[in-house]
Amino acid sequence: MSAIMIVLDGIADRPLKELNGKTVLEVAQIPNLHRVAKNGMLGIFDPLNVPGRRAGSDTAHLSILGYDPYEVYTGRGPIEVAGTGIKLEKGDVSLRCNYCTVDEKFTLLNRTAGYIREGIDELEKAINEEINLSDHDVQFTFRNGADYRCVLHFRGKGLSANITDTDPWKEGAKILESQSKDGMPESIKTSALVNEFVKKSYEVLNNHPVNVSRRKQGKPPGNLIMPRGAGNTPEFENFYEKWKLKGAVIAGISLIKGLGALMGMDIIEVPGATGYIDSDFMAKGQKAIEILSQYDFVLVHIEGTDEVSHDHMIKEKIETLERIDLMIGWVFDHLPDNTFLIILSDHTTSSALGKHTADPPPIMIFGPGIFKDDVQLFTEREARKGMLHRIKANEIIPILLDYMNKTTKFGA
Amino acid sequence: MSAIMIVLDGIADRPLKELNGKTVLEVAQIPNLHRVAKNGMLGIFDPLNVPGRRAGSDTAHLSILGYDPYEVYTGRGPIEVAGTGIKLEKGDVSLRCNYCTVDEKFTLLNRTAGYIREGIDELEKAINEEINLSDHDVQFTFRNGADYRCVLHFRGKGLSANITDTDPWKEGAKILESQSKDGMPESIKTSALVNEFVKKSYEVLNNHPVNVSRRKQGKPPGNLIMPRGAGNTPEFENFYEKWKLKGAVIAGISLIKGLGALMGMDIIEVPGATGYIDSDFMAKGQKAIEILSQYDFVLVHIEGTDEVSHDHMIKEKIETLERIDLMIGWVFDHLPDNTFLIILSDHTTSSALGKHTADPPPIMIFGPGIFKDDVQLFTEREARKGMLHRIKANEIIPILLDYMNKTTKFGA
Repeated sequence: MSAIMIVLDGIADRPLKELNGKTVLEVAQIPNLHRVAKNGMLGIFDPLNVPGRRAGSDTAHLSILGYDPYEVYTGRGPIEVAGTGIKLEKGDVSLRCNYCTVDEKFTLLNRTAGYIREGIDELEKAINEEINLSDHDVQFTFRNGADYRCVLHFRGKGLSANITDTDPWKEGAKILESQSKDGMPESIKTSALVNEFVKKSYEVLNNHPVNVSRRKQGKPPGNLIMPRGAGNTPEFENFYEKWKLKGAVIAGISLIKGLGALMGMDIIEVPGATGYIDSDFMAKGQKAIEILSQYDFVLVHIEGTDEVSHDHMIKEKIETLERIDLMIGWVFDHLPDNTFLIILSDHTTSSALGKHTADPPPIMIFGPGIFKDDVQLFTEREARKGMLHRIKANEIIPILLDYMNKTTKFGA
Repeated sequence: MSAIMIVLDGIADRPLKELNGKTVLEVAQIPNLHRVAKNGMLGIFDPLNVPGRRAGSDTAHLSILGYDPYEVYTGRGPIEVAGTGIKLEKGDVSLRCNYCTVDEKFTLLNRTAGYIREGIDELEKAINEEINLSDHDVQFTFRNGADYRCVLHFRGKGLSANITDTDPWKEGAKILESQSKDGMPESIKTSALVNEFVKKSYEVLNNHPVNVSRRKQGKPPGNLIMPRGAGNTPEFENFYEKWKLKGAVIAGISLIKGLGALMGMDIIEVPGATGYIDSDFMAKGQKAIEILSQYDFVLVHIEGTDEVSHDHMIKEKIETLERIDLMIGWVFDHLPDNTFLIILSDHTTSSALGKHTADPPPIMIFGPGIFKDDVQLFTEREARKGMLHRIKANEIIPILLDYMNKTTKFGA
């Protein structure tokens, strides 16, 4: 028995004025999601296991996969870094960064270097080749993420993530010096390394041909790397050790790939998976079915729905969901016997606020032994009437394991 | 005000192919259970207080009666022993045993001595009379349970249950020597006593007339006692002290009698209560009504429904339930005023798997002050729509105490 879990990031919403008090799930044409609902068991769940707490996608996924985010989460930095393919070790320090634009006095002029995209491969290469840190016991790796986003990773003895950010979050302000938060030698050393890296990034980037060309085109140059959110390597129990499920992750964004990698799951690349609404959803669903025979648990993560919610793009959220629904239909039609299908939203994202909210999102489970309940629609309002009632995110995998008959009883 | 709680062990099930996706509760003719449902308040509950965990009948009952099984449960052995009427004390070690068949080299030939039943009273007597342990500071008591099942109890100074089993679980294998798990003198002493008892049981039993006669009939002799599952005496808080309810237990099986005895409840014997589907259910229900004036809380446990579920006997599960329903009707019709009736399944037993599963079973409460909710049927699917929602097993007694007006408020 195996299972596919499809997470529609932030698809759950609040009632929207623009939709006459209905949600995106309630107005979109999604016959296939409703078909799964008719045949499955529904409910709602609290992403952080208690009502009223807003979850990030990372903490929600940790919780859904049965980990306690309050215990194991060390920040987004290390997860993003792991998602770029770097194998993190204990003692490493990981940071998220932006390419940004500064003047010669390190005044921040543009936090994203004008959403820089072209030429970043060359900039990445130059940084890794030309920067040498004065402390030769510490190695760094710099990697591009999507567009202006990038990551910085340090490995060496005596490092600590207990340091402040360089990002002032405000254009017109000076780039901050990273500082030790605790006065310990490890964090003093690490903050000095970060500051050295930042200065040297300017030396490498400011007159790099890519930036010379950007200036000519009137675009802000990506002439400095601005790190923030330093984090230690989290210690996630291996997913297989924890649940005895051989797991794989299909995702477009490095955050979810990183979570999977840190849990020891296989990361399956799918051409066309972008992490945005232009992603090839069908390819992701087809890949899940294709690899199912090699795994017990395949997580398919769809990011685009959350992105457009943050940007208040209701129409695009509906259209994206309707395209996703076609993939759901294909997966449902090609689901082998003895396979479970779980579909859920990892958290609610209010398209009105452009933010994650704490409303408990819907979940549905289909598969052998599952009760069909009365619920006919995969919507926030209907899912709440389902047989699962209101559960906690960290109860989802145990419930699945019970249906997969992979659990033992306590007692006689 | 008093209360009768009727536990239909393992009556909750999953949708069954053989019943066109319905459950036993959904197809059986049970007008009386549905009559209680129409007049009561329904819900579902998680036997181990969290979704997704499979409970045994012992741990589920502990939880339902408000005890934390993760804290107080020390295994099935001591509970079974207590259920045979032995009054356990702190420091005792209790084991479950089988009569089994071995050859002269202690190779296990038959784990149940061919489901031995006849003559076991004589064998029990011989063991207790003829075996003398070399350590005269330790007393043992040996008692028959049902059929080939029996129990062994040690009392004396310096004993420990931290020892391994003698049961290899596989016919053709040698009977195992019990060994200390921790290398401490207490467990070394106890394992030696167990091994001595096992050897001496062979000396007493092998040529016992009962076994001579069985051999002549071509039946495997019950020529060795094979202990397993050693457990220390659990420390259950006294039920009356805990809840201020004077309690009684009506049950056919020693497991539930033992739980009641260890909680200090009175164990009420009912002629014809067998712990199987041939039990006199009506006699148990009538006894509950008969003794109600002397107690605040009477637990009636029905085992047969679970037994047939483990054996995939769907037809027998339905027939048994329909006979139980007649008893429910009688009890409901004879329920005195100011009396509560609680009916529940202690856990789900899937007749398809033949195993306990973690699906939350239904519960209903009838009595003064209780809301009648919309639910008309005592089934898994309908109970989930009731006013109790999804509760935890350890919340049942507090809810009952509230309706019995035996609780005080916290605050002013």
